[in-house]
Amino acid sequence: MDENGHDVRLWSYNPKQVEELNTQHTNSRYIKDFTFSSSLVAYADLATAIDGVDAILFVVPTKAVRSVAHQVGALLAEKQLQPEIIHASKGIEQKTYKRISQILEEEIPAANRKAVTVLSGPSHAEDVARHDLTLITAASASPEAAKYTQKLFMTNYFRVYTNSDVIGVEIGAALKNIIALGAGALHGLGYGDNAKAALMTRGLAEISRLGTSFGADPMTFIGLSGVGDVIVTATSANSRNWRAGDELGRGEALNDVVSHMGMVIEGVATTKAAYELSKQRGVSMPITEAIYQVLYEGKDIRTAISDLMQREGRAEF
Amino acid sequence: MDENGHDVRLWSYNPKQVEELNTQHTNSRYIKDFTFSSSLVAYADLATAIDGVDAILFVVPTKAVRSVAHQVGALLAEKQLQPEIIHASKGIEQKTYKRISQILEEEIPAANRKAVTVLSGPSHAEDVARHDLTLITAASASPEAAKYTQKLFMTNYFRVYTNSDVIGVEIGAALKNIIALGAGALHGLGYGDNAKAALMTRGLAEISRLGTSFGADPMTFIGLSGVGDVIVTATSANSRNWRAGDELGRGEALNDVVSHMGMVIEGVATTKAAYELSKQRGVSMPITEAIYQVLYEGKDIRTAISDLMQREGRAEF
Repeated sequence: MDENGHDVRLWSYNPKQVEELNTQHTNSRYIKDFTFSSSLVAYADLATAIDGVDAILFVVPTKAVRSVAHQVGALLAEKQLQPEIIHASKGIEQKTYKRISQILEEEIPAANRKAVTVLSGPSHAEDVARHDLTLITAASASPEAAKYTQKLFMTNYFRVYTNSDVIGVEIGAALKNIIALGAGALHGLGYGDNAKAALMTRGLAEISRLGTSFGADPMTFIGLSGVGDVIVTATSANSRNWRAGDELGRGEALNDVVSHMGMVIEGVATTKAAYELSKQRGVSMPITEAIYQVLYEGKDIRTAISDLMQREGRAEF
Repeated sequence: MDENGHDVRLWSYNPKQVEELNTQHTNSRYIKDFTFSSSLVAYADLATAIDGVDAILFVVPTKAVRSVAHQVGALLAEKQLQPEIIHASKGIEQKTYKRISQILEEEIPAANRKAVTVLSGPSHAEDVARHDLTLITAASASPEAAKYTQKLFMTNYFRVYTNSDVIGVEIGAALKNIIALGAGALHGLGYGDNAKAALMTRGLAEISRLGTSFGADPMTFIGLSGVGDVIVTATSANSRNWRAGDELGRGEALNDVVSHMGMVIEGVATTKAAYELSKQRGVSMPITEAIYQVLYEGKDIRTAISDLMQREGRAEF
């Protein structure tokens, strides 16, 4: 039983991680110096893990969402279950440009799930683990599903707000990693608070432009999954995207950064997807474009920044 | 001549500051380790300072704006001048709840000024002085006045965007100091990144609610004078409002903090004005109310935070 009285199971593709969780109640590679409740049971076998559950929370790297969801969908169909489907993944699928909830809806048969809900907001795992105050958003097209998720996770230090704008929340969650990369790079280059705040603000403006082109509510980007997540991801060395940007800013090569980071840096792939989407949809995203040119076309970072600053003066909105 | 080829004069009520600026080209009390261009001339006499100028930039504490503007207005009338009026002050007048541009419009005769423009955005003076990249907004009801200000200040490291939403920009600029106080207090109490990001986001949501009740454009709060200024003010020890909050969080008494700070802490007065305005207008501002209770009614900070977190779960917007 967790703090809210739920029976919580965890599945991982990595048997060593499962064994460590079940025997030592730690997950040392991903969250240091933290001991999980002994009531959390980890499974290496997906079929056993999901048997009879009321809700499934996907926290999987973007590139693995489709294959894991496909397996889950097949098992749910076989067992004739219909759980709530919640996710906290952050990214956009390469080539298809699909959002995570769209992938889940495609791979899990409609008869074997309720409406998909996305959880997002400023929530470093390290801070949640030590019971820092955390506020996040649960967005779903179904108000009942959003309220279910709110109730499932709400405690006296973890506050969940409901929201109906799945598109805006998922686009904000995914694209904020681009801003985190950029803010880290500014830090690595020696720029200060003004420059980072400006990047976050104008970055959010272009994320909002792309999001509203898909029908997102512009207000979502002023919320926990927009501004809130940008602030926590782009001002904190706890964010691996920020750390990757910082190393790029200090002059390291992208390949070296990616290879020694040892964790998925979602922002690198998201930059490519967002850049391609912006071109496809004719949405102006100068910061994303500049980061794309640095990451994928070898453009010098200082030249990219200087080019951004030299543009004609314009209106803010 | 400054970097943009303008002839710049500075007026101060403090003759010692004027003398230091003219002889040593420093302003050691307010900006450490920085030498101004020797072309900047400071004046103790307001009439001489404003004689024949094309534009006047007010950077005056809120409580002094009315009296300084009144003197300027009388001198402009006497000299039959009609300069551009720009300001970068951040606050709301006590009791009248007037914004800075409203005070300037009341005190300077319409025949002796052009449209008032407000300059605001994430711009610590220390960072601007060392040519950190800085982006700000110039908002005016007159597009020409906004463009004039944009051209006046724009350089290759200082980028100015135009905006027409004076109300939103001024309310964001003033009320962000409340959030900075709160974020400093969370830091002083030992809270982490999640809590601060949540405070900034939900703080911005309530500022936006108050602003739109006056006709502000909600998008302004996602901009440089909203999100941008909140980020830079509420994440940086360069902000005196943040530092005051930090000391309060560590358990110091408000009177002690105010007296040893030696500079105006605009957020303390702004909290009172914003709290009273929210009651008068029936706008829900729970964070502002909590900070008001801590500052003015002696409520324990930890109790105030706990009360905020215990509220019923609700929708984000």
